[in-house]
Amino acid sequence: MPDTDAPGVPPIALDAMGGDHAPDEIVAGAVRAVREHGVPVLLVGAPRPLHEALARHDALTEIPIVRAEEALAMDEGALASLRRPRSSIAVACHLVRRGDACAVVSAGSTAGVVATGKLRLRSQPGVLRPAIAVALPTRPVPTILLDAGANAEVKPEMLVQFAHLGAAYAQACLDIPDPRIGLLTIGSEPEKGNKLVRRAHELLAAAPGLNFTGNIEGHDLLTGVADVIVTDGFTGNVALKTMEGSVRYAFSELGATLRESHAARLGGLLQRRRLRGLHRRLDPEVHGGAVLLGLNGTVVIAHGASRAGGVSAACVLAAELARRGVVARVGERLASSRPHRLWGRPSPPASPPSSPAAPPPNPGDGHPG
Amino acid sequence: MPDTDAPGVPPIALDAMGGDHAPDEIVAGAVRAVREHGVPVLLVGAPRPLHEALARHDALTEIPIVRAEEALAMDEGALASLRRPRSSIAVACHLVRRGDACAVVSAGSTAGVVATGKLRLRSQPGVLRPAIAVALPTRPVPTILLDAGANAEVKPEMLVQFAHLGAAYAQACLDIPDPRIGLLTIGSEPEKGNKLVRRAHELLAAAPGLNFTGNIEGHDLLTGVADVIVTDGFTGNVALKTMEGSVRYAFSELGATLRESHAARLGGLLQRRRLRGLHRRLDPEVHGGAVLLGLNGTVVIAHGASRAGGVSAACVLAAELARRGVVARVGERLASSRPHRLWGRPSPPASPPSSPAAPPPNPGDGHPG
Repeated sequence: MPDTDAPGVPPIALDAMGGDHAPDEIVAGAVRAVREHGVPVLLVGAPRPLHEALARHDALTEIPIVRAEEALAMDEGALASLRRPRSSIAVACHLVRRGDACAVVSAGSTAGVVATGKLRLRSQPGVLRPAIAVALPTRPVPTILLDAGANAEVKPEMLVQFAHLGAAYAQACLDIPDPRIGLLTIGSEPEKGNKLVRRAHELLAAAPGLNFTGNIEGHDLLTGVADVIVTDGFTGNVALKTMEGSVRYAFSELGATLRESHAARLGGLLQRRRLRGLHRRLDPEVHGGAVLLGLNGTVVIAHGASRAGGVSAACVLAAELARRGVVARVGERLASSRPHRLWGRPSPPASPPSSPAAPPPNPGDGHPG
Repeated sequence: MPDTDAPGVPPIALDAMGGDHAPDEIVAGAVRAVREHGVPVLLVGAPRPLHEALARHDALTEIPIVRAEEALAMDEGALASLRRPRSSIAVACHLVRRGDACAVVSAGSTAGVVATGKLRLRSQPGVLRPAIAVALPTRPVPTILLDAGANAEVKPEMLVQFAHLGAAYAQACLDIPDPRIGLLTIGSEPEKGNKLVRRAHELLAAAPGLNFTGNIEGHDLLTGVADVIVTDGFTGNVALKTMEGSVRYAFSELGATLRESHAARLGGLLQRRRLRGLHRRLDPEVHGGAVLLGLNGTVVIAHGASRAGGVSAACVLAAELARRGVVARVGERLASSRPHRLWGRPSPPASPPSSPAAPPPNPGDGHPG
């Protein structure tokens, strides 16, 4: 297919072994990304099952396979990424590092993807901790929430840096020139919250180059009062999942209500299509996934429960991030926010960008078709 | 009205000066509690405006006024409770302490109510920190979430005690004999989360007398997988407000969707009443409020934005808590959970296990009133 191997557009390296429904739904998502959205994709994983799955879609000539001997299980955490240097996610990261792919997409365990990404792609210069950013479905433009789960334990300085990461994302992808930054906490006054948040408030208010608008409470996550909402990965993950659960709950209660009476049932029939559209818009599956910001490469983490639709949406998002040069924008922003440049790397044995971290994959040997 | 001064049923001491819409909506809520629900109420606050407001409802003979010279402003925190010993919330607490009221209800600032309650009513023997418990609208029975905002900074041992407080509440008010306890965190495996939560998981799993079912994620807050969900006050408050905001968001998006087309509009008309009922059920205003557990007296904190309906719901809840003897049940439970009896009070320097920190509990004497 012409798009897949068009020169100049490197494909998405899709971790075909990560996710609750890997590899079948991952492969189906890849096919959809290629055919419906024109996004070039290559699959990383065990050649035989991928070959068979692609054959079922009659897509062997459209989507290359890159061999990876191992895979991280969904219940494996950060340590597994050290034990498995040839996991599908590690190989996908290496393809990005070598420039053979423009971005990584994985529906694998978040902890595993984050750890492998940090190990194989390395943090960008000056990044204390990469953070997971998600786009909340506010109107008229989405709100970026980070960290949504990469760092359960953070320091106040990291929240300031998350603000820069999120601001760069909002500038590059949402075309917001000077994003308003909010700090997620439990009261609107600066002195509210825990120690971490109170100190972060001081630092954010004093940070040059940040349009800090103050504290944000949970009920304002979806009202669009800020463009970027900053929090630690524990709180952010709880808030994100609470939001998903609450929206799902509201819709299921709604469904029960609509089935309760004749008049309401008739009304329900008339609205069913509209509601489905709305539900889709609020469905985290459809947003595409979370972006791991602060690495030397674009990484999108799809929902672990993603099916074909979620996987293809994540590929579309990753292609868009790569096209808009989010990694470069983050780098520029960090370089211009002077203090952060001096902070140094997160993990002590800081290796230069040229270190031979991962074994070389063989993108050529994949194409079994 | 006969109920108001029926012997043997002490009234609710309602802080008439706390809340965004004090005193008018508070007074209106008191009138509604008395007339519609038969709950005796007395108003604590500045006599003149309360007298005028009661006169407008023609309720001067139904609802007594207890004078309080001062009031805590909504933006005042914990320290103000020390500076204002005669605030309306302090006087309300004093009425409960003296046995002239069975419970306090306030829509004032959470921090102010918590601090004043701790100061005036004191913690129950062995309670490390009182915690705010809210009832989430799960089916078929509500789920208790605590701490919803009293303690932004906690230690793992406190989370174990919150589990006991919540279990006593669920036993007393929801008639659940052996409540399932869940721990709010960001992954289902015991090693997931931050340091606080990992240690709390160990302690909860080892605690005798607790039916601990493991970790709960944000998307399970409303699915009823646990009867009591334990968390620190920072995370709990963010989660609670996120839930409220998300449900509100889902309904407003729904409203927008229903207005979009003719067919959908017709459907919307047919369903309007049903939806309103559902919306009411999910509205935090209607639940009545949050309960401050662990004090020598029943304290209900209504939403700061409460109007008459929210205030009367909070009074009804407070009367129910008093009737069911929740304070005594908490005391019994703490006394029987052996290690906690030895912990002593929160503020004094750590006392040895054999110190007579806590007065001897009397599991037999049950209901104090």
